[in-house]
Amino acid sequence: MHAGLRRALRPRSASCELLDLASNDYLGLARHPLVTRAAAQAAHRWGAGATGSRLVTGSIELHATLEAELAAFCGFEAALVLSSGYAANLAAVTALTGPGALVVSDAGNHASLIDGCRLSRARKAVVAHADPAAVDAALSAHGGRALTITDAVFSVDGDAAPLPALAAACRRHGAGLLVDDAHGLGVLGDGGRGAVAAAGLAGAPDTVATVTLSKSLGSQGGAVLGPARVIEHLVNTARTFIFDTGLAPAAAGGALGALRLLRREPERAARTGEAAAALYHRLTAAGLAAVRPDAAVVAVRAPSPDAAVRWAADCRAAGLLVGCFRPPSVPDGVSRLRLTARADLTDAHLHTAVRILTATAPRG
Amino acid sequence: MHAGLRRALRPRSASCELLDLASNDYLGLARHPLVTRAAAQAAHRWGAGATGSRLVTGSIELHATLEAELAAFCGFEAALVLSSGYAANLAAVTALTGPGALVVSDAGNHASLIDGCRLSRARKAVVAHADPAAVDAALSAHGGRALTITDAVFSVDGDAAPLPALAAACRRHGAGLLVDDAHGLGVLGDGGRGAVAAAGLAGAPDTVATVTLSKSLGSQGGAVLGPARVIEHLVNTARTFIFDTGLAPAAAGGALGALRLLRREPERAARTGEAAAALYHRLTAAGLAAVRPDAAVVAVRAPSPDAAVRWAADCRAAGLLVGCFRPPSVPDGVSRLRLTARADLTDAHLHTAVRILTATAPRG
Repeated sequence: MHAGLRRALRPRSASCELLDLASNDYLGLARHPLVTRAAAQAAHRWGAGATGSRLVTGSIELHATLEAELAAFCGFEAALVLSSGYAANLAAVTALTGPGALVVSDAGNHASLIDGCRLSRARKAVVAHADPAAVDAALSAHGGRALTITDAVFSVDGDAAPLPALAAACRRHGAGLLVDDAHGLGVLGDGGRGAVAAAGLAGAPDTVATVTLSKSLGSQGGAVLGPARVIEHLVNTARTFIFDTGLAPAAAGGALGALRLLRREPERAARTGEAAAALYHRLTAAGLAAVRPDAAVVAVRAPSPDAAVRWAADCRAAGLLVGCFRPPSVPDGVSRLRLTARADLTDAHLHTAVRILTATAPRG
Repeated sequence: MHAGLRRALRPRSASCELLDLASNDYLGLARHPLVTRAAAQAAHRWGAGATGSRLVTGSIELHATLEAELAAFCGFEAALVLSSGYAANLAAVTALTGPGALVVSDAGNHASLIDGCRLSRARKAVVAHADPAAVDAALSAHGGRALTITDAVFSVDGDAAPLPALAAACRRHGAGLLVDDAHGLGVLGDGGRGAVAAAGLAGAPDTVATVTLSKSLGSQGGAVLGPARVIEHLVNTARTFIFDTGLAPAAAGGALGALRLLRREPERAARTGEAAAALYHRLTAAGLAAVRPDAAVVAVRAPSPDAAVRWAADCRAAGLLVGCFRPPSVPDGVSRLRLTARADLTDAHLHTAVRILTATAPRG
């Protein structure tokens, strides 16, 4: 493998003092005392693990509470919690499609949606990124059952999918729409209800969403949100639900604690978007090739994988932690730094971040 | 769907007083105060979530400690922790195979190994259950790269794979061997080091194991164990590792607490096996069609899916929680109750369990 492409793990210490513009902890809740206390209390009360499949001993009342509150918050009839967002996407795609069906998939979709397609054995049409006309054309060419799948906010560049137009295309052809709202929940929509709610699609009979509990909600796990009949179907068919151990009580408790905190303090959602916009404007003003953010992720292009790796390393040496996305983890082969805004970033944090990013930027 | 085949979730309360012969908490550690305290402390110290991919901000020193101690305990050079055993199996199978390779898979393998095969795009040969000669024949018919995959202990019937003979067949043909030791860790081998260690295969250059942190270790998560070069390869290629959030600190902390407790109290492993054997002998003496257990799982055949569902419901009404496995969750179409032994079952527990199971058994 080429230099600049080899990955190594760098475990962080509990007292890591780098300025964090790399995590997906968009609301700054992962270490919030109310959230960590909710996680710890759940471990004490329910145990360290769920002890089995959700269908055997692995369902606890805490899961049911989290599912009910999450569904209500996001505007859906029902929810199902799984051990990760990855597992939720595999479950949703495989349960909603199958051999003979068509899956229309955005070229920029997350790996877990792509793996869901592979597992589903459905026919797959990969369409141009964020292109409702391409979705319409793909659906037109197919007669039978079809599902369009898309990220709500794309992880790499931070841009949002055109959800209303995608939903319209799906409805024209009687197709379902599955939206992965991992990066929208907690950031977009009224009080952080997510991109699907913001688009007025939450609760629609033909719309299913997946979310993660590990980003804005600062914990671990994932969920599928949709009509009750869809959730019941998942309980009976989704292999990553049936054959996996239920989500650990501490993770469910932490996510529920974060959700309740967000309901009490809805302004956190807007603050994240404001921080991202401020970061983008300052980076652009400093001459860097930033992509206008639709949510919390701000991508900055780098001229090469090597340059991106060096840039990220120089930032780290200067006290700033940034993400570095490069082939093969990016669908388009473009290397970039990936910055994430958080609700708890101060003006001083943003100033420091922009100063370091500018000072360490590759010479054009 | 037929009566008796429809599944519904029954969340349990924190004070559930049913006698539990259904969970996979084989060592009785999920609610052990040292384990729940370790989970809670990890949440306080590290946060409720890992905040990102293990390749970005999601690796913490606690993961590295758990990986080092788990690898050492099981006799492997290195380990990699993922968010579930399911994710670990998807990672291991896809990273160790690929298009052009052959995967030889036992007909009774767990869903996650099967899904791993589907994702790998390798050619797949499903061979008869626990049949080294069939594995040998499948490998003989193939010239190139090959991997044999098997559960160490099969979840449904609780029988062990013939690991030494499988390993010999693999070596004859230069094939790798991947063993899912989910039900062996904590129960089989010296002090619970697992079935792979018991077979003398731990640390072999051509052997990789996966384990779960959610059964004997009472927590959540999974791990791949193998040579350091294999683990490094996984870090760079396994999609369920790269594109998933790191395991929550509480889950890693709980599992590490359980592992350390097992090292201090190795007799727990043997006690689990003794409880399973006692359960089997008493059920058989009572005339029930139990399968001789090789680890903690004791399967009891039921005449039909409906009879199995009724039997399990009658047990529950009498205060005993048992697993009920029926189509399509079983590879062979046979319905059964699935009982699991735990290290902390007393003679009185076993007596009660056998009494209820006998009194509620379907009339032959």
